[in-house]
Amino acid sequence: MTTYQGMARAHTNIALIKYWGKADSELFIPMNSSLSLTLDALYTDTKVCFSEELKQDSFCLNGEEQAEGAVAKISRFLDFFRNLAQLDLPCRVESVNHVPTGAGLASSASAFAALAAACRQALTLDLTDQELSTYARRGSGSATRSIFPGFVKWEKGDRHENSRAVPLDPADWGVAMVILALNTQHKKIPSRQGMAHTIETSAFYPAWPRLAEKHLKEIEAAIQRRDLKAIGQIAEANAMAMHATMLASNPPFTYFEPASLEAMDQVRSLRDQGYTAYFTMDAGPNIKVLCPASESQEIAQAMEEAFPEAKVITSQVGPGIQTLDHWPY
Amino acid sequence: MTTYQGMARAHTNIALIKYWGKADSELFIPMNSSLSLTLDALYTDTKVCFSEELKQDSFCLNGEEQAEGAVAKISRFLDFFRNLAQLDLPCRVESVNHVPTGAGLASSASAFAALAAACRQALTLDLTDQELSTYARRGSGSATRSIFPGFVKWEKGDRHENSRAVPLDPADWGVAMVILALNTQHKKIPSRQGMAHTIETSAFYPAWPRLAEKHLKEIEAAIQRRDLKAIGQIAEANAMAMHATMLASNPPFTYFEPASLEAMDQVRSLRDQGYTAYFTMDAGPNIKVLCPASESQEIAQAMEEAFPEAKVITSQVGPGIQTLDHWPY
Repeated sequence: MTTYQGMARAHTNIALIKYWGKADSELFIPMNSSLSLTLDALYTDTKVCFSEELKQDSFCLNGEEQAEGAVAKISRFLDFFRNLAQLDLPCRVESVNHVPTGAGLASSASAFAALAAACRQALTLDLTDQELSTYARRGSGSATRSIFPGFVKWEKGDRHENSRAVPLDPADWGVAMVILALNTQHKKIPSRQGMAHTIETSAFYPAWPRLAEKHLKEIEAAIQRRDLKAIGQIAEANAMAMHATMLASNPPFTYFEPASLEAMDQVRSLRDQGYTAYFTMDAGPNIKVLCPASESQEIAQAMEEAFPEAKVITSQVGPGIQTLDHWPY
Repeated sequence: MTTYQGMARAHTNIALIKYWGKADSELFIPMNSSLSLTLDALYTDTKVCFSEELKQDSFCLNGEEQAEGAVAKISRFLDFFRNLAQLDLPCRVESVNHVPTGAGLASSASAFAALAAACRQALTLDLTDQELSTYARRGSGSATRSIFPGFVKWEKGDRHENSRAVPLDPADWGVAMVILALNTQHKKIPSRQGMAHTIETSAFYPAWPRLAEKHLKEIEAAIQRRDLKAIGQIAEANAMAMHATMLASNPPFTYFEPASLEAMDQVRSLRDQGYTAYFTMDAGPNIKVLCPASESQEIAQAMEEAFPEAKVITSQVGPGIQTLDHWPY
């Protein structure tokens, strides 16, 4: 009986230069290159088992068997690796997400990076990490960057093979992030839908890819000289510009919520008090604060006091994908 | 003893296609043409008296003598009319603003329109209303539009003489506006400063004037066919696009406050309930809701219930400048 098993862990990442818009929505080629920080505190463990004994693909997430739709998505992703291995076996996928529940934090980046890494191990595929990142991308754009540790660039490329992640800097010089997970009941527009509507209708979107590439050059230089203040300023400007493209859509929409604005104000006020704190925000109301590790506890405490109903997560910089020797559950 | 006296009333206006950015900051030539609705509920009465008996210009606003800085600004404005009349007499200006105090609503539009009209009357200047609008503009850009009633276009022009207001439609077909004046303590960025920072640093500003001109054409067509829903949709998109230019500034800034977002959500929810309600927002947190006069009381009531600490003002469409037979104070 032939069985191929692999286990891997991948950490989530938060973009400092945002991925916003697809140039090719089938291949997940983005309109602009992006840059992120891999985080230690949020990750996904995934085990795959390709086996003749199985009748069909199945997917168990956090102990719960997933329905047909979710399995179909996983199956299409597994096909990339089955094709590479020239192997046609059903697969059992088990995943455990270490993301606080109800925190409204997306886990698709760590999920598809972990799944890609587990498949490579199981099928002993001869893929470099960079090549692996192009496959992670096919599951979820942001998963591309979760292959590597620290500051990671996703070069947009123009075809499957060259739209890939590049590790820039391990960020092992005292960088941290405080995540303010605002538990709101607000109806959320899925980011894919938000992206598509923005590209189609926003008068300001045409200027976005060029602006993002400019921000990217600036932030790469700031990373090289380890200038966290400049990194934060650029990240904040980039995030707000992304949200501006949505506000200029027709009809306009926004992921801003009252508490998001309050949190931004608090970050500005922390800066006034002398902290090095800069925010970024994605396709949801949560606010993520880039700061020195040495200030992260105080910043987290201030956030907890100001937002008693929110969840505050302090994270150090995370490693890239790792294979697991044993399944820790 | 020679004395020249004039008295006039002018109403404020709310832009539906925003004036955002100066092409010439001395002449107040705007980067784009704009369009507004003149409102009945908010106005300024102004009396001027040019007299040999006076030693110098003075300015009394709401019963309070104004300090040197405010008087100097008025004096420069009066000079336009003194020059036109070839007359060099000091002037006493008295103004009463009918704008609820503490409501955070700017009154410079009605103030300079009323002052211009009072000067024309006092000095019996041979100026058409359109010509008068070019002088009102020199006091405050938005004052240009307060010369006329209803829907008014400010054609941007390219020199003093042709940057002027044009009356489009008296809007006497059941149009109203509900103003939600959010009494916030937030430190406000003056709109002139906000404009200048946006033009200098926003990557999306270059696309703004063209977008505004496109919105203007669309809204003029919608006004012509009396399609309040389309007027509202265009106005809402235009306002959000203006705010998007600020969000894309560097460093970014916004006039959005938590309560502004809540109010926008409420307007969307009123639409879901079947009301024809669309919001616009200027360089401050207040939300203005364009709606049919027939729905304005119910919309105002819903706003009052949702925002008990705010001031809600319901306004019908206002007339253009009027001279006053007597000083009603």
